[in-house]
Amino acid sequence: MAAYTANIQVQTEEMDIVDITAQAQKAVAASGIDNGMACIFNSGSTGAVTTIEHEPGLLQDLPAALERIAPRGITYQHEERWHDGNGHSHIRASLIGPGLTVPVIDGTLQLGTWQQVVFVECDVKPRQRSLLVQVVGD
Amino acid sequence: MAAYTANIQVQTEEMDIVDITAQAQKAVAASGIDNGMACIFNSGSTGAVTTIEHEPGLLQDLPAALERIAPRGITYQHEERWHDGNGHSHIRASLIGPGLTVPVIDGTLQLGTWQQVVFVECDVKPRQRSLLVQVVGD
Amino acid sequence: MAAYTANIQVQTEEMDIVDITAQAQKAVAASGIDNGMACIFNSGSTGAVTTIEHEPGLLQDLPAALERIAPRGITYQHEERWHDGNGHSHIRASLIGPGLTVPVIDGTLQLGTWQQVVFVECDVKPRQRSLLVQVVGD
Repeated sequence: MAAYTANIQVQTEEMDIVDITAQAQKAVAASGIDNGMACIFNSGSTGAVTTIEHEPGLLQDLPAALERIAPRGITYQHEERWHDGNGHSHIRASLIGPGLTVPVIDGTLQLGTWQQVVFVECDVKPRQRSLLVQVVGD
Repeated sequence: MAAYTANIQVQTEEMDIVDITAQAQKAVAASGIDNGMACIFNSGSTGAVTTIEHEPGLLQDLPAALERIAPRGITYQHEERWHDGNGHSHIRASLIGPGLTVPVIDGTLQLGTWQQVVFVECDVKPRQRSLLVQVVGD
Repeated sequence: MAAYTANIQVQTEEMDIVDITAQAQKAVAASGIDNGMACIFNSGSTGAVTTIEHEPGLLQDLPAALERIAPRGITYQHEERWHDGNGHSHIRASLIGPGLTVPVIDGTLQLGTWQQVVFVECDVKPRQRSLLVQVVGD
């Protein structure tokens, strides 16, 4: 049994939904771990990780849904205190969640054909993100 | 330390919320792993895994909440491109998340008495799903 | 490779968002595990675990968002059957999710500076919660 860590670098703007599947799979391959789990995680409070079919339509539909849940234009108490314009970003990230755990079998992330691991940038300014891929198993 | 994989087969229709606790627990027992974690995961982009008290009232209330977040009747860009009628399904699945990780202690999933592991079918047509249960630990 | 379990006790009232980062980190340190993953989990169907910047503004903004998704004042079928006043609590907990998995590197939870692990109490009455921290790794 072993544990292995890799990083994925992504450059983002607000509401970018970045397909990081290939980089995550590369990390799993580099780990030498055949069977176990991989946790893809954002160390930060304004970005999130989930899966989606990464096609242009849904890249508009997911932000539209987040706008219903945590709209940009309303009052946030976070904004009243910190004035960084990203109250909605924090709420969106907390609701989606900062990380995702995926089974690894035969050295492969067990995703569907039309299912990609994505980083969802919820913050309001360009960010350089360093995501973690942590793999445990045999 | 070991890693163990099992599959759970479920036949579903839209907005079925299927209690898979017994099958997930059976997989944990079969693994021979006493202490660790189990990841229950849907390899696909229109189904989700979470926990809920699996009683008839909430099986109506959760779909009602998803209808507020990602309603059926509105325009989805996914639909404009693919015409498969399931834009809302993808958004619902991405927001709930495709998988769930649960601690395993003494060979038992650490769930509450009124807390069941459920698969949430978000797609619009009947599906045969093969879910993964991946267990790691000692 | 090893697996380690600890408990975190928290006393809550409705919509308390309790910072449990220090206790979770203490559990990781006590585990002796340097590299792996920690799963922080609520065994119950009316509480949730996620991350957020734990500052007073967002502690009001997250409940406001949950009020949009699963408002208190509407009809829940759960309520029609069980009359415990917490239909919205179950829905909120299922959508956020009962647990969170975080990478552990060099004995440390890999969180951002302004990112805390929180327990979100969705139930309507004061609760004594015993959360699990399950750590696996080397």
